[in-house]
Amino acid sequence: MKPLKIAMAGLGTVGGGVVKALANPELAERAGRGFEIVAVSARDARKARGFDTSKFTWTADAVALAKSDADVVVELIGGEDGVALALVEASLTAGKHVVTGNKALLAKHGARLAALAEKNGVALKFEAAVAGGIPIVKALRESLVAYGVETVRGILNGTCNYILTQMEATGRDFADVLAEAQRLGYAEADPKLDIGGGDTAHKLVLLASLAFGTVPDQKNIAVEGIDGITPMDIGFADEFGFRIKLLGIARRTAHGIDQRVQPSMVKAGTPLADVDGVFNAVMANAGPAGRYFFEGRGAGEAPTALSVVADLVDIARGNFGPAFGRPAATLKPLVPSDPGAAISAYYLRFEVLDVPGVLAEIAGHLAEAQVSIGSMVQRARSPGEPVSIVMITHETSQASVERALKAIATSDKVRARPCMIPMEAA
Amino acid sequence: MKPLKIAMAGLGTVGGGVVKALANPELAERAGRGFEIVAVSARDARKARGFDTSKFTWTADAVALAKSDADVVVELIGGEDGVALALVEASLTAGKHVVTGNKALLAKHGARLAALAEKNGVALKFEAAVAGGIPIVKALRESLVAYGVETVRGILNGTCNYILTQMEATGRDFADVLAEAQRLGYAEADPKLDIGGGDTAHKLVLLASLAFGTVPDQKNIAVEGIDGITPMDIGFADEFGFRIKLLGIARRTAHGIDQRVQPSMVKAGTPLADVDGVFNAVMANAGPAGRYFFEGRGAGEAPTALSVVADLVDIARGNFGPAFGRPAATLKPLVPSDPGAAISAYYLRFEVLDVPGVLAEIAGHLAEAQVSIGSMVQRARSPGEPVSIVMITHETSQASVERALKAIATSDKVRARPCMIPMEAA
Repeated sequence: MKPLKIAMAGLGTVGGGVVKALANPELAERAGRGFEIVAVSARDARKARGFDTSKFTWTADAVALAKSDADVVVELIGGEDGVALALVEASLTAGKHVVTGNKALLAKHGARLAALAEKNGVALKFEAAVAGGIPIVKALRESLVAYGVETVRGILNGTCNYILTQMEATGRDFADVLAEAQRLGYAEADPKLDIGGGDTAHKLVLLASLAFGTVPDQKNIAVEGIDGITPMDIGFADEFGFRIKLLGIARRTAHGIDQRVQPSMVKAGTPLADVDGVFNAVMANAGPAGRYFFEGRGAGEAPTALSVVADLVDIARGNFGPAFGRPAATLKPLVPSDPGAAISAYYLRFEVLDVPGVLAEIAGHLAEAQVSIGSMVQRARSPGEPVSIVMITHETSQASVERALKAIATSDKVRARPCMIPMEAA
Repeated sequence: MKPLKIAMAGLGTVGGGVVKALANPELAERAGRGFEIVAVSARDARKARGFDTSKFTWTADAVALAKSDADVVVELIGGEDGVALALVEASLTAGKHVVTGNKALLAKHGARLAALAEKNGVALKFEAAVAGGIPIVKALRESLVAYGVETVRGILNGTCNYILTQMEATGRDFADVLAEAQRLGYAEADPKLDIGGGDTAHKLVLLASLAFGTVPDQKNIAVEGIDGITPMDIGFADEFGFRIKLLGIARRTAHGIDQRVQPSMVKAGTPLADVDGVFNAVMANAGPAGRYFFEGRGAGEAPTALSVVADLVDIARGNFGPAFGRPAATLKPLVPSDPGAAISAYYLRFEVLDVPGVLAEIAGHLAEAQVSIGSMVQRARSPGEPVSIVMITHETSQASVERALKAIATSDKVRARPCMIPMEAA
């Protein structure tokens, strides 16, 4: 069989990793045919990359790769629109398979691009777009199919998980640890997409589509990042036996799908709580088959290249299949549930003045909103300093807690905004 | 497209689960075609099974299913030879795809059956054979391919893991917990294959073949079960911060492949240590892409049926591919490493008489064999009772430890056989 001809758009860390990995002769054995890189587009053709680039046909215009004689275009440019979108559209239209690691692109245009791929009889694969090297796209698309999936939750951003793990280990505050992560190259110079939760949201949107058969939908999702997490909350979490993790959570409820990205309290010793540093993890609940947990490296050259290579081997073998595991035409619009209706226990922290009546006032507002308290810690610092009151509520609706917090915030005895972190069941 | 016609051999818990799961109309959407059960063979055609069996064509002779008009034969009979082997051979020869959950069959005849499938242009799939619902066969076959895998380790037998977890939680001894597991249906009436490590060995042999591209080889494997594990060792493990797990371990070394099944000390708080009860888990080290961890239910109707259904959907979509991820002809014979050369730290426990000189004697034999001691605990019970001496060695070869233990066993001050459990790195 003829080798699979590949055009590479983007030859940075991941693209370079793909080129190097494809040199492994075992892959041809697995794929039943060889791999040949026939065209490349990258910012700088002359940059030293640690492998021989002299045989490649270079083009400055990435979109022109759609007109190359490649069978597959590997898109590693990034960005939700622009060149990446133009290239993917042109490639699919030209009857070329596409492998991409571009979560932003697919979160926005996934259903349309999947339909375009099907119309042209080619594959659109994106294992590298979610959780780096973890084969979770394949698992949801091909393995956990018998009973559907009702919940999928993940630690999907290694930068956030690294920062939270470091804050926990060192007691240092967010800004301090972020600055260090930037120095070490674990966080971008502009870290907003990571720490604000946007990157996690892109990945979650793809997982939700694979799990529920819905159109990827990044409009109906509540996103909160980790920039509000303090060492104090991490300390209290530890005292109660929990760890704070940034989770992407997608749940099928009786009233629609609940998609959210939020810092969450996860019980220590359970799988998601134990994911450390730059690792990623996904937990999927597959009805009667129970829960599945997948952990691995979420970013970096080798894990991400591994996922791109797996997609290429699939394509070489003729395993195309619809991008989201079912025909694009059958993907249903996502009907969002009311976020306020979500039920959870909550961690609440109030910084209050050390004066009589303050606990009565807080407890009164909570009672009025029907929020009942499971456990409580009150801790004074020095006399005259604000006092921390920490509560873990029983299960209640998000709307009830928010109503109570709104009322409490009007009190002149409560300083700063109360902190509210949902407790996520294992 | 025409529905995929299925013949079911075996309609027990898992087979029944497959029939029920295939009624899910979403699967046809995913597969691009429907599923139709055209023939069935099971011990008792009239048994009530919770679903309508009246439409099925029944046959008493399972092997006759190879002559049915099915496209795929699902073999859930079990056994390494006999009817299961005859059916699988006849079905592949007749150009029918085969899906099986039969680890014993494949551990023995895997390479030959894979070659037979290829020769006839059909698929031989076995996701259900290893770790129940965990899609580890697909992950090793299709996902973790870029860099190869150098180590694969797993908790592959839910019965053993349940027993060890219960021993830990209750302090009760092995026989007692086994009897309870049998009453609860978590252990077979004849538990030998589970607790002796044989079932784990079958599964490990398949994982090793997928990971290393070797012929499944159940001859070159050292197998030790959990029947020698005592509450005392579990207690000492806990004291040192470890848990005892029955692991299947396959490692590529410079001098061949090391396959073994053995109780192992795993550091508490690491992924394999935290796998509780009837769960299974697999950790794979994929070179520069780092470690991958997969956890899920290892047995039971739904998890196992889920894996069978995933294989059927793959076949319905035309994703055949070679059984072990590469052409059967390229599978290399397994070159075993010398088990004695394996390097590890060891937990050693000696029951000794409470007399002078005994520690000097033990330490002397260890020193002579070049085994150095990392930490030690000596614990007296009542006066006159034997004393437990527990040591954790530094890393050393298995042969050295065995040499020392052999010498120590000749001492008249040491009662019973010393206990030796390797410490498995996270």
